Amino acid sequence: MSKKDKVIMLDFWGSPFAMRVKMALEEKGIEFEAREEGDLLRNKSELLLQSNPIYKKVPVLLHNGKPLCESLVILNYIDETWPSPPLLPTSPYERSVAKFWADFVDKKVFDGGRQIWTSEGEALEVAKKGFVESLRLLEEALGEKEFFAGEKFGFVDIVLIPHTSWFYAYEQFGGFKVEDQCPKLSAWMKRCLGRESVAKLLPDSAKVCELVCMLRKMNGIE
Amino acid sequence: MSKKDKVIMLDFWGSPFAMRVKMALEEKGIEFEAREEGDLLRNKSELLLQSNPIYKKVPVLLHNGKPLCESLVILNYIDETWPSPPLLPTSPYERSVAKFWADFVDKKVFDGGRQIWTSEGEALEVAKKGFVESLRLLEEALGEKEFFAGEKFGFVDIVLIPHTSWFYAYEQFGGFKVEDQCPKLSAWMKRCLGRESVAKLLPDSAKVCELVCMLRKMNGIE
Repeated sequence: MSKKDKVIMLDFWGSPFAMRVKMALEEKGIEFEAREEGDLLRNKSELLLQSNPIYKKVPVLLHNGKPLCESLVILNYIDETWPSPPLLPTSPYERSVAKFWADFVDKKVFDGGRQIWTSEGEALEVAKKGFVESLRLLEEALGEKEFFAGEKFGFVDIVLIPHTSWFYAYEQFGGFKVEDQCPKLSAWMKRCLGRESVAKLLPDSAKVCELVCMLRKMNGIE
Repeated sequence: MSKKDKVIMLDFWGSPFAMRVKMALEEKGIEFEAREEGDLLRNKSELLLQSNPIYKKVPVLLHNGKPLCESLVILNYIDETWPSPPLLPTSPYERSVAKFWADFVDKKVFDGGRQIWTSEGEALEVAKKGFVESLRLLEEALGEKEFFAGEKFGFVDIVLIPHTSWFYAYEQFGGFKVEDQCPKLSAWMKRCLGRESVAKLLPDSAKVCELVCMLRKMNGIE
């Protein structure tokens, strides 16, 4: 398929799920228009409601007008539609390992972080423990490798790295430091920041922290 | 890859997630050994703990000794490793649509059903409403087609049909009939039962209902 296709994505600057899609397109060298759903927390655009009627959430990828939803599904689509450079490994087994960890990130990291910024007291301690445990498992999966699949920045890196822009907020509300708990994962984060797509697309941690403050207020937490 | 490979799956007869894997292997004509984790609710085998250290859950597929976990990841692997007959459509867009609905099933159906058999009173009404809404969305995605991807039994069918063996239990504890709420989905269920792999592998609904009774007791619900 041509790189000249019309590619639009429905975006929200703070969404780690939307960041993944932008990073994948950037890595593939695909030109795209990111339409910010600026008022996402209150009003959603007609296009978003029409193209993701089930979840009404970003990201949505519109490829020549055809909508795709759910960020991992979109990443798989991007990798199949524009195969070069590949994000997933080529061997079916290694692909499965990558998909397993991507799914693990989706199950644990964002909701685990949310548990931190919505809890206090004992519940907060439980939330922090669970979150750090998930990161340690990811650190173990990374092992001594440079990136999750080896020497090349790929699928699992793109899936996980956007979440790290929320880590500063988790640290502020949780009173802990990811670097103290997971030094190797922190080193990986710094390596990823050396990547152009990551440096360009990862939002400022302080700005994300303000977003989390606002979300806390919207949830009646002071 | 050869159909003569050694394929073992760690199984539990009542798990809809394990049933998917067996159906996919059956559809592909792959010989496999299903090892029942008979005492899953209390004791797990060493092999299960070793091969799925993260979740310690069935299904696990061991392909020539290499473990794969998480049923959707396994189905993708099976389809890539033994491509004929294909489970996923060939076009990247249609593949994405299938993966979207498979993910929807994973997010809604089993947990939605669990809400039913663990609730009573008003919470039960909310649970039933949510469950039926999810089924109606699936029914809408099915539309007038014979199977989810059209004329051929495929990926989404294999993902969803095992859950229907739990529907009788949901109906008993919820006091409703899936057929009354979703007649087209019920007709699809009957069509799937005409498929050899489904008829052979779907457990008896009454037996599943006994399992749910036991699970309720284990959860302190009478």
